[in-house]
Amino acid sequence: MIHDTDTIRVSARFQKATEDLRAGHDKFVGEIITLTEIPSPPFKEERRAAAYEEMFKALGLEDVQRDGIGNVTGLRRGRGNGPIVVAAAHLDTVFPEGTDVKVRREGTKLFAPGVGDDTRGLAALLAFIRALDAGGIETEQDILFVGDVGEEGKGDLRGVRYLFTENAYRERIASFFTFDGIETQDLVTAGVGSYRYKVAFKGPGGHSLGAFGTVNPAYALGTFLVGMSKIEVPGDPRSSYCASTFQGGTSVNAIPEEVWTEIDLRSESAEVLNRVDGEVKALIDAAVAGENARGDTANGEISVELTQIGNRPAGTTAHNTTIVEASVAAIKAYGFEPAFSASSTDANIPMAHGVPAVKFSHGGAGGRAHTVDEWIDVEPALSLRGLNAGLLALVATAGFVEG
Amino acid sequence: MIHDTDTIRVSARFQKATEDLRAGHDKFVGEIITLTEIPSPPFKEERRAAAYEEMFKALGLEDVQRDGIGNVTGLRRGRGNGPIVVAAAHLDTVFPEGTDVKVRREGTKLFAPGVGDDTRGLAALLAFIRALDAGGIETEQDILFVGDVGEEGKGDLRGVRYLFTENAYRERIASFFTFDGIETQDLVTAGVGSYRYKVAFKGPGGHSLGAFGTVNPAYALGTFLVGMSKIEVPGDPRSSYCASTFQGGTSVNAIPEEVWTEIDLRSESAEVLNRVDGEVKALIDAAVAGENARGDTANGEISVELTQIGNRPAGTTAHNTTIVEASVAAIKAYGFEPAFSASSTDANIPMAHGVPAVKFSHGGAGGRAHTVDEWIDVEPALSLRGLNAGLLALVATAGFVEG
Repeated sequence: MIHDTDTIRVSARFQKATEDLRAGHDKFVGEIITLTEIPSPPFKEERRAAAYEEMFKALGLEDVQRDGIGNVTGLRRGRGNGPIVVAAAHLDTVFPEGTDVKVRREGTKLFAPGVGDDTRGLAALLAFIRALDAGGIETEQDILFVGDVGEEGKGDLRGVRYLFTENAYRERIASFFTFDGIETQDLVTAGVGSYRYKVAFKGPGGHSLGAFGTVNPAYALGTFLVGMSKIEVPGDPRSSYCASTFQGGTSVNAIPEEVWTEIDLRSESAEVLNRVDGEVKALIDAAVAGENARGDTANGEISVELTQIGNRPAGTTAHNTTIVEASVAAIKAYGFEPAFSASSTDANIPMAHGVPAVKFSHGGAGGRAHTVDEWIDVEPALSLRGLNAGLLALVATAGFVEG
Repeated sequence: MIHDTDTIRVSARFQKATEDLRAGHDKFVGEIITLTEIPSPPFKEERRAAAYEEMFKALGLEDVQRDGIGNVTGLRRGRGNGPIVVAAAHLDTVFPEGTDVKVRREGTKLFAPGVGDDTRGLAALLAFIRALDAGGIETEQDILFVGDVGEEGKGDLRGVRYLFTENAYRERIASFFTFDGIETQDLVTAGVGSYRYKVAFKGPGGHSLGAFGTVNPAYALGTFLVGMSKIEVPGDPRSSYCASTFQGGTSVNAIPEEVWTEIDLRSESAEVLNRVDGEVKALIDAAVAGENARGDTANGEISVELTQIGNRPAGTTAHNTTIVEASVAAIKAYGFEPAFSASSTDANIPMAHGVPAVKFSHGGAGGRAHTVDEWIDVEPALSLRGLNAGLLALVATAGFVEG
């Protein structure tokens, strides 16, 4: 059993596998388009999952099924029935129902919401399965291919969380890849922790003219937002905050009874995350108190309802683990300089369970993820270097069996 | 020609007219029900207008027609072909298509969306026409009866606006009554002007962590709201502002590409309204500039799209005009104590055109307007006192011709 990427890379079987990736690149691109055009909004991944399940079956994976939360899993058996390596990509996108997901192609560029994040990752898994079979590659450990639900936003990693707490394979998972993101050099070995809240400011409402002067929860929201925009966070450990979604009010001629925002706080450092969390809560309290001092509270005061809607554990994978060593070597083998980074991805969950995990990119180029202008470039040379690196990292982690 | 309400009220002809109101009260109630049960959603008043047009024709009004915007007009000729008095009520309701408008009756109470606002006003005009004819009342000025469209919300007074800018009678209108609202003592002689806007802050968006630091339109909104909450407005002339409705963003882990609010600015004084309007626009510009200075604009700047969604002119009617003096005297004549108030109604438009105008109530009792629980009480004693007062004010304004 070989973990050495140089040895694997020059083997006839692996060469045959990469030749299959090359020959099958158009098919890969076609599958990106097919899957992108099956909408997969948050909590509504069923249609894409059903299609993906059929694709796993058509590729001959064993024990293909959808688990209790909606993840699609399929096993490619290796030598043993012991530890397994997971190769995952997420089925969900950030885009709500009704978003136009038709792919527009300009040269080698594909434009569509979700085309890169993470639909290209889903298609990469299919290409890997075909390539492994084409090369006749046997691995020491079984590889469990997973299209998981709920990576984005309020999904709160629920698919992979379930995989590690309820799924029948959970005890056997020894390493975990999520293929997500564009730049091949980017290797995520630190999971950024996050807290997410719905912050609902509430008040008595009333007619815009008749009740003028009454406290307005919108002004409390405004004060909170201004305060939030001034919070200082370090670049290292990487940290962020964002006021993301908004709703409130019923009519242009009424003081709103409720205005809410959903916010996202993140840090690689649990300490920084907790510090920012404290500052945010103090800002919310001050905004409520400020509006109650500014406006008339005869009909009621401003109050706040703070609901935690996300809690992702921070975590890290040691750099001396097989998965990280194999990933670094594979990235280098195809001419990239590995750059370690921290992010909040499906890999957070295994990290928090002590299972070595990385987020490996699915290659190519792209940009504007999480916007309707999202795009990827499937120019074959760069795209294939990324796919080859991913496959090599996966095989080296699972252990290559010489034929 | 007589404007004095006492003289008119005790005249045999007016007594005969009020006797007809009394005798015809059941018919009046029946017409309220008939008209209420013809849905008349915003911008979809055609069905009710067609029925109302037939009613005007059946009552023998002259030159009955629907004008270019959908108002139903019909003339009751007086002595001259000079100035005319308008007696209007609005055809539209605030309720969307599909709202159940079936009237439920409990004793003297009628329950249905729109039953009072302003369907009772429409029926009152029909009762007035019958009573004038029954009493053989001749007026100095012609009376133009109008069922107008677009009084509510986004209708933005478009029916009466058209009446004063396009309708063939526009040059001749010398006074204007809108019969709208319940309490007979309530006389609106000041039109609260309003400007309404949708303020959409836009930016490049991006991943909450990956694009952290990028300008966020939510922070521009926050700055705007804080500034807005500090705008000073006088209590007299009565003025107000309100940030009312909110929406924005697509996902908790994405910087929003757009966040909008709808705002409502009002004042009895055009000068104050325009001053507040200027301050709001300056605050918006400053909020945009501030966020572009605070955040990273590499992927795009914050911009704003300001859409005017309402524009109601302010205005007042002097208390020494014939219409106000007649209205006050008529209200007192039937035992009510007149209470002047300011509101935003169809009367705003003539006021802005310098035409003396009031909103006169159509009488009775009621409540819960603009909700599906709207109700009126048609108990005859109070109902008739209100109708009598309205008819008296109308005749006194048009000038009673002794027979």
